[in-house]
Amino acid sequence: MSLPESSQEMRIAHFVVKEPMVIGHECAGVIEEVGAGVKHLSAGDRVALEPGVSCWRCRHCRGGRYNLCEDMKFFATPPVHGSLAHQIVHPADLCFKLPDNVSLEEGAMCEPLSVGVHACRRAGVGPETAVLVMGAGPIGLVALLAARAFGAPRVAIVDVDEHRLSVARSLGADAAVRVSPRPDDVGEEVERIRAALGGAEIDVTLDCAGFSKTVATALGATRPGGKVCLVGMGHNEMTVPLTSAAIREVDVVGVFRYKDTWPLCIEFLRSGKVDVKPLITHRFGFSQREVEEAFEVSARGRDAIKVMFNL
Amino acid sequence: MSLPESSQEMRIAHFVVKEPMVIGHECAGVIEEVGAGVKHLSAGDRVALEPGVSCWRCRHCRGGRYNLCEDMKFFATPPVHGSLAHQIVHPADLCFKLPDNVSLEEGAMCEPLSVGVHACRRAGVGPETAVLVMGAGPIGLVALLAARAFGAPRVAIVDVDEHRLSVARSLGADAAVRVSPRPDDVGEEVERIRAALGGAEIDVTLDCAGFSKTVATALGATRPGGKVCLVGMGHNEMTVPLTSAAIREVDVVGVFRYKDTWPLCIEFLRSGKVDVKPLITHRFGFSQREVEEAFEVSARGRDAIKVMFNL
Amino acid sequence: MSLPESSQEMRIAHFVVKEPMVIGHECAGVIEEVGAGVKHLSAGDRVALEPGVSCWRCRHCRGGRYNLCEDMKFFATPPVHGSLAHQIVHPADLCFKLPDNVSLEEGAMCEPLSVGVHACRRAGVGPETAVLVMGAGPIGLVALLAARAFGAPRVAIVDVDEHRLSVARSLGADAAVRVSPRPDDVGEEVERIRAALGGAEIDVTLDCAGFSKTVATALGATRPGGKVCLVGMGHNEMTVPLTSAAIREVDVVGVFRYKDTWPLCIEFLRSGKVDVKPLITHRFGFSQREVEEAFEVSARGRDAIKVMFNL
Amino acid sequence: MSLPESSQEMRIAHFVVKEPMVIGHECAGVIEEVGAGVKHLSAGDRVALEPGVSCWRCRHCRGGRYNLCEDMKFFATPPVHGSLAHQIVHPADLCFKLPDNVSLEEGAMCEPLSVGVHACRRAGVGPETAVLVMGAGPIGLVALLAARAFGAPRVAIVDVDEHRLSVARSLGADAAVRVSPRPDDVGEEVERIRAALGGAEIDVTLDCAGFSKTVATALGATRPGGKVCLVGMGHNEMTVPLTSAAIREVDVVGVFRYKDTWPLCIEFLRSGKVDVKPLITHRFGFSQREVEEAFEVSARGRDAIKVMFNL
Repeated sequence: MSLPESSQEMRIAHFVVKEPMVIGHECAGVIEEVGAGVKHLSAGDRVALEPGVSCWRCRHCRGGRYNLCEDMKFFATPPVHGSLAHQIVHPADLCFKLPDNVSLEEGAMCEPLSVGVHACRRAGVGPETAVLVMGAGPIGLVALLAARAFGAPRVAIVDVDEHRLSVARSLGADAAVRVSPRPDDVGEEVERIRAALGGAEIDVTLDCAGFSKTVATALGATRPGGKVCLVGMGHNEMTVPLTSAAIREVDVVGVFRYKDTWPLCIEFLRSGKVDVKPLITHRFGFSQREVEEAFEVSARGRDAIKVMFNL
Repeated sequence: MSLPESSQEMRIAHFVVKEPMVIGHECAGVIEEVGAGVKHLSAGDRVALEPGVSCWRCRHCRGGRYNLCEDMKFFATPPVHGSLAHQIVHPADLCFKLPDNVSLEEGAMCEPLSVGVHACRRAGVGPETAVLVMGAGPIGLVALLAARAFGAPRVAIVDVDEHRLSVARSLGADAAVRVSPRPDDVGEEVERIRAALGGAEIDVTLDCAGFSKTVATALGATRPGGKVCLVGMGHNEMTVPLTSAAIREVDVVGVFRYKDTWPLCIEFLRSGKVDVKPLITHRFGFSQREVEEAFEVSARGRDAIKVMFNL
Repeated sequence: MSLPESSQEMRIAHFVVKEPMVIGHECAGVIEEVGAGVKHLSAGDRVALEPGVSCWRCRHCRGGRYNLCEDMKFFATPPVHGSLAHQIVHPADLCFKLPDNVSLEEGAMCEPLSVGVHACRRAGVGPETAVLVMGAGPIGLVALLAARAFGAPRVAIVDVDEHRLSVARSLGADAAVRVSPRPDDVGEEVERIRAALGGAEIDVTLDCAGFSKTVATALGATRPGGKVCLVGMGHNEMTVPLTSAAIREVDVVGVFRYKDTWPLCIEFLRSGKVDVKPLITHRFGFSQREVEEAFEVSARGRDAIKVMFNL
Repeated sequence: MSLPESSQEMRIAHFVVKEPMVIGHECAGVIEEVGAGVKHLSAGDRVALEPGVSCWRCRHCRGGRYNLCEDMKFFATPPVHGSLAHQIVHPADLCFKLPDNVSLEEGAMCEPLSVGVHACRRAGVGPETAVLVMGAGPIGLVALLAARAFGAPRVAIVDVDEHRLSVARSLGADAAVRVSPRPDDVGEEVERIRAALGGAEIDVTLDCAGFSKTVATALGATRPGGKVCLVGMGHNEMTVPLTSAAIREVDVVGVFRYKDTWPLCIEFLRSGKVDVKPLITHRFGFSQREVEEAFEVSARGRDAIKVMFNL
């Protein structure tokens, strides 16, 4: 009996990506060469890249939750190099063709947008789900955009920074509530958030900050039977009122990266349901000087949401 | 147009229950009288009582989660009297006929068993779910019995008390692990629990203790993609490693009482899939002296699991 | 012990509705009087009415599927009168306040729209679901509108009538495919539908026609692992290739009316995600002559989608 | 950047199986040799084999429904040879180690049992599901065994053959109802089935026969909101009362083979929840004469359920 090896031909088929767009694991590019087994893509195609390569053998991969694969090789996680290079080789299955009306820059934004998409899926966001987003940083903003695209009728967002909140408002938040970094009274904050939503109940809260305080607010603000999704990776140990949430059957769901999100992200970009362009605040070339400047901007700044490199 | 009132006739139909069995909200009895609108029960029937009367109008009731009803009138919650009386009146819809081979005492045990059943449903326990139970008190023991009845292939249980663990073993726990009340190292404890299960992964942990420490162990012991269900009401504020659980997509689900559990509990008792008799450790009559003694036994004792009154 | 009767006060509280809008069970009106137990509505409020009054005691009601209640009293089903009268009395729980920007006519359209909403919920339509609608009659059109509002990225619709298809196109169908009423070759038709969608796979088909032929096309056109939802009530006995669908795990789900749909329909109307106004093609007063004319128009006509009465 | 090829080492790692047990795709054996990348198995291990090798790249494989993979290479489907040979080579990921108390013959039965397991999973069988099985042939019997193991409190089975029904009774059916092959009245048959279950409602029907008549009975016998699962592959075109089922929201779900079933089947065998030994009615060696005789027995006979070869 011969080995059923045909499926592997495609796995070891690769292509070279030109013009990677973003540092690390967020990238898109143009195909230079494809392996012999690759049928659905060809040189010259513009593609967005899903960075993680999972094993496809473990129980998680088989069960449709490949993001939990314990053998995942993740792009841009040492010792695997990222895409801040002139060329990379990547499995064809993890490259997704961009429609004509989606730019490479937008394609590269599929990666952060995927985090919001995966969170919305896990939390069950849809046209009946009023959503609260804790934190208006880059992840909070993509969570906001994803919740909107999943049909959430109302989205409120909370942050300590007025500039971030104004960005969130311009991206479509129905309510943007400024809070203090160290409030004594989570209850009072919950009241203010509810009031900002006109008294509407909050079905799902996406915590994109990751502090004890934001999780406590999330648990308190979410209606009985709702869900709190922990999207932001913050402190590990948290001190939160877990029991009072549990007896209201407010479930706490976690997310790890994303799975099967690229096609949906690209559809959101194609149809205009999501516009990621406002999130790209800075652009750099790939000279030594520009790379250094880019990292400085990124580190410095509350103005910088996403910084792009064009190679 | 006449009012569609026929459905309400049955709601205001009531019957008198004789011989309530357990203090508070856990009871079963014999019907003395039924209201005119009650068709499915009659005087002389032996029934177990579901104590909570929900509003049937709010979104929770309509959506099938009536246990979250904010207008629920709960039996034995002041100012509503419990069943430690000679007679009570209760809606017929919340009375469930007992088969001949299920005693009133067993029928009264549907209430605590319902807590375990609801937890297993919310956590999705089934024949593919290895289960860990934190705490071998009365709730831990009914959780163990319920997990078994839902088909869990392996159930481990953890407690600080050797006597309780030996009861758990006799009720069918595959592994019973004694831990110290204040360990410094949750990780070491997790290793011991896994070893006790022969290295098997734990899909679901039912925390029936409600301490930061037990929840931390629960979060650490449960496999990626698994669930931790908070069954025991302990401290409200908990300090737990929530982020490391979230990035393994270990979800935390709460439970509040139960819903639609009586028919299944009665089926479990009828078929012998659950035997609650070992949980009934003490029996009393209803004289002043006996009631006082019963409360003393119950308060004193690690030997007492469930204390019954026969009226 | 006193009876927990407070919840019933509201149930037997009623109000009088003025100006019912549509014949039969599709109506909205203005409240003239409310019962003593009604807190959330008052005279003068404009409301849409959910017509079915379920028992709230049976397993279906308790389990969140009250539309399956076998004791449901349905408005406008003899001997219960409908709303083609000057006044009706209805339970307050089934009356939903309309926002200022939603007219009574639009409010009355919540009933047919609910059929589309319930179908989309049962079939799991969302932003990742390419949808095919079989039949462009009134139910097919509300299914199309609902699928769009649930975020379906692509919706194709099929009918034998070019006029209906042009209405569907104007309502947002991405593809509208005309078929013959008696094709010999379902396979060829499936190819044409797929081609009209640019080769995209169909995840869910909503059959709003109810013929063997349309169901056969639905089963053939839907991708492996997808769903066919039977929305239209047509012939009972159907001759369809059920086995070839089953081995592709194409599930067939049915719908009966709707449950918990009014709030979502009203939100869709408020936000503009759904515009039902193009479906209201004729308007009449309530004189004997006008009522007769209205029924004639309705019976005659392919031009008539929905006929309204203003009282 | 080096290729992430490590995961593939295991895929191309293979071993030789000795002593395949059953003709075609139902087999178990002893490992003679393992590939370099195989860590969890070694020569001498006794394993059951899952026959289908899917592509792990398509949307079905990624989404956890690899049984729907359109590129699956299925063992014993020409031109791929089956296990009726002295040696075969198979991917290690699809070989499952048998516990000491499970024989090779029982291990080979994981394949047919998997069909019942997959059907029970898709239909949601559990401790609250009264089950009806249509047909008491080999597939009907494994469906009965699986339903029992999933905790179904009551299982009824229907067939035209009294011998098969007596086998079903001995395997644990609560009711075994003989029907005529061509009844005029499905309704009367439904009444008899319900009566045989003491009037209990049927939540799920597993149709393991695949005729219009059995599916019609299945649809009529299943309670509103229940499920009919089409397990048996019979006629393609079926004439069934689909509309009356749809308006009772009785869903029709199909099954194609199985996915992720071997570990659960082995656990069922290990724990004794399922005993497949009564299904093995004949055993043969592997001489020319014996093989011919085996095929004759299998073709002839209603007595033969499963025929085994020992090589």
